[in-house]
Amino acid sequence: MKIERPRGTRDFLPEDMWKRRFTENAIMEVLNSYNYEEILIPTFEHLELFEIKSGEEIKKHMYVFEDKGKRNLCLRPEATASVCRMFVENLRNRQLPIRLYYSCPMFRYDEPQKGRYREFWQIGVELIGSKSSESDAEVIALAIDILKKLGLKFKLEISHLGIIRGLLNDLGISKDNQSMIFSYIDKGDLENIKKIMKSDIFFKLIDIRRKRDALELAHSMLDGHENSINALKELQKILRLLDFSEIEYEVNLGIVRGLEYYTGMVFEISVPNLGAQNQICGGGRYDELIELLGGPKTPAVGFAFGFDRIIEAMEMQKIEILSKNPDLLIAPANDSVRDAAWKLTMKLRKNLVEKRIDIDLMNRKLEKILEYASRIGVKNVIIVGEKDLSKNKVALRNMKTGEQKLVEIDEIAKNID
Amino acid sequence: MKIERPRGTRDFLPEDMWKRRFTENAIMEVLNSYNYEEILIPTFEHLELFEIKSGEEIKKHMYVFEDKGKRNLCLRPEATASVCRMFVENLRNRQLPIRLYYSCPMFRYDEPQKGRYREFWQIGVELIGSKSSESDAEVIALAIDILKKLGLKFKLEISHLGIIRGLLNDLGISKDNQSMIFSYIDKGDLENIKKIMKSDIFFKLIDIRRKRDALELAHSMLDGHENSINALKELQKILRLLDFSEIEYEVNLGIVRGLEYYTGMVFEISVPNLGAQNQICGGGRYDELIELLGGPKTPAVGFAFGFDRIIEAMEMQKIEILSKNPDLLIAPANDSVRDAAWKLTMKLRKNLVEKRIDIDLMNRKLEKILEYASRIGVKNVIIVGEKDLSKNKVALRNMKTGEQKLVEIDEIAKNID
Repeated sequence: MKIERPRGTRDFLPEDMWKRRFTENAIMEVLNSYNYEEILIPTFEHLELFEIKSGEEIKKHMYVFEDKGKRNLCLRPEATASVCRMFVENLRNRQLPIRLYYSCPMFRYDEPQKGRYREFWQIGVELIGSKSSESDAEVIALAIDILKKLGLKFKLEISHLGIIRGLLNDLGISKDNQSMIFSYIDKGDLENIKKIMKSDIFFKLIDIRRKRDALELAHSMLDGHENSINALKELQKILRLLDFSEIEYEVNLGIVRGLEYYTGMVFEISVPNLGAQNQICGGGRYDELIELLGGPKTPAVGFAFGFDRIIEAMEMQKIEILSKNPDLLIAPANDSVRDAAWKLTMKLRKNLVEKRIDIDLMNRKLEKILEYASRIGVKNVIIVGEKDLSKNKVALRNMKTGEQKLVEIDEIAKNID
Repeated sequence: MKIERPRGTRDFLPEDMWKRRFTENAIMEVLNSYNYEEILIPTFEHLELFEIKSGEEIKKHMYVFEDKGKRNLCLRPEATASVCRMFVENLRNRQLPIRLYYSCPMFRYDEPQKGRYREFWQIGVELIGSKSSESDAEVIALAIDILKKLGLKFKLEISHLGIIRGLLNDLGISKDNQSMIFSYIDKGDLENIKKIMKSDIFFKLIDIRRKRDALELAHSMLDGHENSINALKELQKILRLLDFSEIEYEVNLGIVRGLEYYTGMVFEISVPNLGAQNQICGGGRYDELIELLGGPKTPAVGFAFGFDRIIEAMEMQKIEILSKNPDLLIAPANDSVRDAAWKLTMKLRKNLVEKRIDIDLMNRKLEKILEYASRIGVKNVIIVGEKDLSKNKVALRNMKTGEQKLVEIDEIAKNID
């Protein structure tokens, strides 16, 4: 009976995991340098957690199941709601701000396609407790530093939801209609927005794609819309801090993000040539979510990387991560020295813990062991022979050069790189 | 509205994750030295995968849900069946043996209690393709080396299922009754076994708790039971290899493991003082599972650590893993140098990537920033002042000694450890 893995999931083979661990470690190094600390949330949560504010769209695409107590659980579709729940439950008495990050899989019941899986990985940060422009700028700068460290080419687009919300409020558009409009903007469906309202300013605003001078342009269009102007000024402060760090960006007031909990600055990062799923990072400010989840009123800002897409983008941009071949294979020359080869292997594994050390487990003849050594790409083979052994020596063969020499057992470490 | 995390799950706080990552990295270092390679399997699988051979016990405790195509999925309760499925689907054409490891959460719908959670972590290995005694001994030695590296005190118990199976077959006990007997042994319920069969030899065998001489004792009892004797000889070979590595063990023929896929050597490792859940590792040989899952007949052996229990055992045995406090906090002396403090922070984070660097994000006054610095235990504070800055200097305060000195901005790195 042959069973396949479920649709939309993946098996990660050794060469995949090598790349993923290497990349995760590089990302974590930058996160640590910014003094962010790792946390981990449960793989499943109560469904209610996501019903509160994650938006209709995400709810349609969740894996939901009942526990035996008849409560609805679901596999986490994203981490921000869980991290806020965790903050309320376990971290609310700590010094603020709290800088957190996570690295774990998320689950969405989507039709699988290139760059879109039912189980997918995110690495994200949440900076809880500060409403300063510096905190907005910090998370953006952090995302950018990580991508630069990985060597990726990318594009950063920034907006502030207060600009459009201020205008829509002033135009008397209801909250429900605003949610619909945001959802249409996300889908690029302007026709349906026109059925709800007609405002030239609005359509001009969400069409802005400029550097910093975008804000002067928007300002000139928003005369009299005080809340929008205030949001503009907040965005201006954030951009000023990014300018100090020479971070390049484009202001795009058409960015609204799919999740309903954002309240201020929002941003997205995309990479060229990744097709329809070219967004590798998204985030923003959510100052109301923690209170909604039963906590004290607490501002917060964060983002998440699509980790799988980062890996794909690195492959696309030919950023190579070479996996490490085994360093050493211990080969008994014949059966009489099999015990000795075993003892030597166990000793070397203990003493050279940073090396990958292999031993024949298939009772192969020496010739077959050497063939196997070539096929797995091991760097050096140690041939254990009876005569050499009596002089406390083994033959060390460099598999690349073919060079072979006798070395003292205690000097093996010195003779391999 | 306050929402709590689901029963039996945990939030891992920064101090938890620090310990867990540190320990995982230490374990992975040993795994790599043995030339094992990391893989990752999906969080959920088709239910059928676990219906084939994981035993009735595990099936009662799984999280099962339907996808929209009406197929039954379940959260993985353990990894071995998935790794074999992955081998059949993606790795069967590779050179044998294949040495694999994984580190990920598993899910069981048990009543939560100390050391027992509904989401729990396992780090495990599967060595696929070799039936040699060396491969049995290798995985045991690997588990032992890992625990020694972590500094844990523990107890290793080994058995071989063939010894008891051979006897039960010779006694004419049916397969179904054998499964029941194994399940009763696991629960320590000897009374119910006596209802199925009466054999003095059997009860004496499963009561053996001895070092290597256990095998001579068992041998003397099993005269004429050829299959049992052959299994004894296999176990003898494995123990001989462990003796070479000076690994201490106890032979306990009462160890049968809960999962039905084991076919040969089985072992368990426990730690003292961990209460009812004191088993931190279990494993053994399963030579039939890959074929049952639609692959070629392929021998395999492996084990899994209960990662949460390892962490608990380390705490119990007072093995301390100290988390790293932030290295540096940048404090603007007043608002006029806030931009300068930001720029310096961003520069230091980039240049001293191995340090944890913090900056005030709460617009606190200097005095409050220093209070905050004490509370979060940061090692050094840099105070950015207008006058010092004009000479390209900042004040560096060692928070432990209280010592404060002026340093050149370019020489900050040299002045902190």
